[in-house]
Amino acid sequence: MTTSLEPTVPVAAVLGVGDELLLGATVDTNGSWLAAGLSDLGFRICRRVQVGDSEAVIAGALEELLREADVVVVTGGLGPTPDDRTRDAVARFLGRPLEPHAQVLADLEARYRARGMEGVPPMARSMALVPAGARVLPNPRGAAPGLALDTPRGGLVVLLPGIPSEMRELFLEEVRPFLLARFEGRLRPLLQRVLHTTGIPESLLAESVQRAFPQGMGGVSVAFLPDLQGVRVRLVVRPDEEGKGEEELDRVADTLAGVLAGHLYTSPSGDLAEALGTALKARGATLAVAESCTGGLVCRRLTDWPGSSEYFLGGVVAYSNQAKRSLLGVGADLLEEKGAVSREVAEEMARGVAWRFGASVGIGITGIAGPGGGTDEKPVGTVWIAGWWQGEVRARRERFGGGRHEVRERAAQSALHLVYRWMEESGGKGRG
Amino acid sequence: MTTSLEPTVPVAAVLGVGDELLLGATVDTNGSWLAAGLSDLGFRICRRVQVGDSEAVIAGALEELLREADVVVVTGGLGPTPDDRTRDAVARFLGRPLEPHAQVLADLEARYRARGMEGVPPMARSMALVPAGARVLPNPRGAAPGLALDTPRGGLVVLLPGIPSEMRELFLEEVRPFLLARFEGRLRPLLQRVLHTTGIPESLLAESVQRAFPQGMGGVSVAFLPDLQGVRVRLVVRPDEEGKGEEELDRVADTLAGVLAGHLYTSPSGDLAEALGTALKARGATLAVAESCTGGLVCRRLTDWPGSSEYFLGGVVAYSNQAKRSLLGVGADLLEEKGAVSREVAEEMARGVAWRFGASVGIGITGIAGPGGGTDEKPVGTVWIAGWWQGEVRARRERFGGGRHEVRERAAQSALHLVYRWMEESGGKGRG
Repeated sequence: MTTSLEPTVPVAAVLGVGDELLLGATVDTNGSWLAAGLSDLGFRICRRVQVGDSEAVIAGALEELLREADVVVVTGGLGPTPDDRTRDAVARFLGRPLEPHAQVLADLEARYRARGMEGVPPMARSMALVPAGARVLPNPRGAAPGLALDTPRGGLVVLLPGIPSEMRELFLEEVRPFLLARFEGRLRPLLQRVLHTTGIPESLLAESVQRAFPQGMGGVSVAFLPDLQGVRVRLVVRPDEEGKGEEELDRVADTLAGVLAGHLYTSPSGDLAEALGTALKARGATLAVAESCTGGLVCRRLTDWPGSSEYFLGGVVAYSNQAKRSLLGVGADLLEEKGAVSREVAEEMARGVAWRFGASVGIGITGIAGPGGGTDEKPVGTVWIAGWWQGEVRARRERFGGGRHEVRERAAQSALHLVYRWMEESGGKGRG
Repeated sequence: MTTSLEPTVPVAAVLGVGDELLLGATVDTNGSWLAAGLSDLGFRICRRVQVGDSEAVIAGALEELLREADVVVVTGGLGPTPDDRTRDAVARFLGRPLEPHAQVLADLEARYRARGMEGVPPMARSMALVPAGARVLPNPRGAAPGLALDTPRGGLVVLLPGIPSEMRELFLEEVRPFLLARFEGRLRPLLQRVLHTTGIPESLLAESVQRAFPQGMGGVSVAFLPDLQGVRVRLVVRPDEEGKGEEELDRVADTLAGVLAGHLYTSPSGDLAEALGTALKARGATLAVAESCTGGLVCRRLTDWPGSSEYFLGGVVAYSNQAKRSLLGVGADLLEEKGAVSREVAEEMARGVAWRFGASVGIGITGIAGPGGGTDEKPVGTVWIAGWWQGEVRARRERFGGGRHEVRERAAQSALHLVYRWMEESGGKGRG
């Protein structure tokens, strides 16, 4: 029995608060995201729980989770309305009074003044109430701050707002460093590499991976995580005391990168639009996009990224044939002869939009997203995608499964990938 | 004390089993769906829990949930692989042996034969093991059946597979009628109304609601559910024996609809883009959209809806000033004098895009989504939104909080709302 001297892996639990969460009106994406984040940090997750907006129930769940967990991260119930009960529940659970917090109140006042309001509305003042002794985690994106509280028996309770963007920023900026410092030396984070692939089905991907490692992957475990943008391949290892896992992980990741080359893309966020932006910028290239069935989705994804105005000039959503003609210069005879969903029209759209915006690269997308509009020859899910890059054209036809949403998401991803691969194949040298 | 003779509302809990669920690689959509389904049936939901693939942990969670719940519905962990532990955990928890079930085994054999396989693979035979005394719920879509088990203390445990399509069909076809029969006379389904609002902060909304009901709302409870699109106001009542709740609910909903009129919209999905589409169609109007900071988001939201080509003609994403000039006809002098983020430019964009596409309605959006680009006079979050409707123009300035994502989402919603309100105020009569 030497384990008693070993540092034990700290345990975390995640508690979601809100009637809408409990009753299924809102899906608990916060809980999933937090569990993944805490697990990546090196915590063992014991369980996740969702309860309704009731002080007694919240306090009961906390009590129960703290029997096993060193940290309980709670989301939701910190807003200004009477059904926001988390602050009161935690104060009651800890037997501490709620007190107005000067800095939080000052932040609230500044926030409402910036929106042109005179002072903080009475109801919103509850957001400045803080259980005595709590550490305040400032929330730059929203009104309610996060809170961290030590419990008498040594556990830690962290309260975060339920709005996902606020919760995520608070976790990354405040909670993560705080937990790393608090549990220093006890956390043994999993090491992982994620390879982002697109355009290859999960089953074929898994077979390629199996063939590449006939002897298995040693201590590295692999997971295939499919979504509408492609399949993420996650490689995970828990390093031993000497940190040996890392070499093994690198070796597996390198082998896979070779095997999957034509389907891979590299972006810190996992978003192919970010990867394409980086590739365009590196070449001093500029992009314009003409969309029909994707209806603005590609433009939106590109402009999700700050700084996209450096390489993205704009786009045209040409839903009608008339718009394809008058804004993109697609010939009426071509539309008549080949149909709006055709290689030729996609190519003309790509060329036309590049010309319109004076961009060095153009993308054209035309297809049938459904549910209506399909024919035997061109069923729902048929999409033509074209890229234009200074005089050259590439195009491909896709046949996507799924409903309208799936077809649109997959078509957007495929279009971004067409141009991204082209840039990567051309090497690093810019031709603008 | 007359309550002891009243039928009490039965309590249900939902337990999700699986490491991928616990660790956040998979979002627990099953749990949300089941909680909504059980709640609609008239159960009070006490809590939802997710645990990993461990017999002891599953059994512990069951024990705990059955202290409060009359029914625990469990999903996941019924498959054929060694990490599927739910069957064993429940058998252990109930102290009953696992026995091969003749009918389940026969179904499995038929299933594998139909796929051209000789008999059931050894690993898959575990799916025919059933805790003694369990009721088998046949699963036409998959291999693992559902199971229902009575516990010694009168609770009921229902096991369902984790694959969403199988789980849903089993719940609707087998579990729902079984529960309705079992709890006959005790279930009293909730009634609810949802009012969708936008453009009013949660705290002001809650204050308006409070002012409208100085005496409270009787048996109706209200929840405010904010997201980036606005705040949903959910009214819920549990009707009494005579079904009296419904009148009360209608009365409260009608009063609120009057109080909140300027901020309401009506759409079955809760999406304002759907509501605007319906309003445009009713008037025979057509729409074109010019987007700068929202970068295609408004176009994408409009084209999310099947049939949008009936009223949506297209749009221009004019990220650069040059594009605003050449595609939308915004004057160079105007851009110079007023700046790209100004009332005048938004109005010219709305007018220009309507003209370009030959639409009866135009929307123009220009603003600073951040993180860069803000000034003292026009900080990040400043957005000008304009609508053009056959010669008339309306515009408003917004100052949104939050980061790039939040500003863009809020700006898109505000733009849709500007035109939607305009249409609603004009009455039902079309002017195209």
